[in-house]
Amino acid sequence: MQKPTNNNFPILEVFHQRWSPRAYSEKPVEKEKLQSIFEAARWAPSARNEQPWRFIAGQKGDGTWEKIFESLVEWNQQWTIRAPVLVLNMGKKFYDYKHLDNDTYQYDTGQAVAMMVTEAVNQGLIGHQMSGFDPAKAIEHFEIPEDYQPISVTAIGYYGNPDELPFDMQKSELEDRERRPLDETVFSGKFGEAW
Amino acid sequence: MQKPTNNNFPILEVFHQRWSPRAYSEKPVEKEKLQSIFEAARWAPSARNEQPWRFIAGQKGDGTWEKIFESLVEWNQQWTIRAPVLVLNMGKKFYDYKHLDNDTYQYDTGQAVAMMVTEAVNQGLIGHQMSGFDPAKAIEHFEIPEDYQPISVTAIGYYGNPDELPFDMQKSELEDRERRPLDETVFSGKFGEAW
Repeated sequence: MQKPTNNNFPILEVFHQRWSPRAYSEKPVEKEKLQSIFEAARWAPSARNEQPWRFIAGQKGDGTWEKIFESLVEWNQQWTIRAPVLVLNMGKKFYDYKHLDNDTYQYDTGQAVAMMVTEAVNQGLIGHQMSGFDPAKAIEHFEIPEDYQPISVTAIGYYGNPDELPFDMQKSELEDRERRPLDETVFSGKFGEAW
Repeated sequence: MQKPTNNNFPILEVFHQRWSPRAYSEKPVEKEKLQSIFEAARWAPSARNEQPWRFIAGQKGDGTWEKIFESLVEWNQQWTIRAPVLVLNMGKKFYDYKHLDNDTYQYDTGQAVAMMVTEAVNQGLIGHQMSGFDPAKAIEHFEIPEDYQPISVTAIGYYGNPDELPFDMQKSELEDRERRPLDETVFSGKFGEAW
């Protein structure tokens, strides 16, 4: 199933095609496709080229997947149970330089993950990010040092069958996609005045 | 000038070509190209589809550009003086729903801006983000409400002539690009163990 953007101006084909589905196929993902996805994230921009992002990659059955899965809230477990790949996305809170606060570590980690899920589309896959998980569980499961913050989890895989989703999730899987119009997002002169 | 990634695994052509140059041409950017860039950001994913990102777009000479420019640190003013477009990137700190804290507002804003600068490459343009600016000045200049946080500024334009940059910036403009290897970034089993 595809659910392309209803875009008003032309954008990259991968951006037109990307969305956040919940209906995953159980088909495993080829390692070389995951390598491309992580490579795309690797080349993201970041303040001082700090590259604050770190990832823990789990493939179903490898023990890592199961630990990431356990950290998810029940709602997300309902649909990620079929996803063959789960990735825990973390950011480093401090610069290497003098251990100063890195004010953009979350922002820059977001950039890297956006590039990951876009590359997933390029590889014929789907990606869906979640903030509904327990960072404390993830920290304990993976012995994550205190300089790092778990921020989100991404499910990656092939598209499956929406009929296998719980009924309420089928509804959101099929409904139209919504975004705020650009004139409520892009301003000029002062905040709130449409560009 | 181009400075493509030295990628070890195949990635999208726009990711291969994207970098963060400082040598801008003074040539103005066509409005339809900027519309595509903002449209790409519009379709970024976000927690609860909150779309926490907001942008203030300045084109040189329109007054908005000048106010964004004034908020930049001197180092960034040295090279952005030629950039025809400056965009202030902001995030909304709270959910519309019950005014709850949005823990991923910076992360999600980073995703939208990553999509903007990627679309810029698709439009034949360059984009370079900066965290070196004074958020308090931006808040004052543009009467930004307290629910919103200025996070970064993006310069957008056509590539220019690196010889026009100050000498120290010429050096970084020409030097090789560096990224941490994937086995120090992607883990499995526990934090720090290469995937």
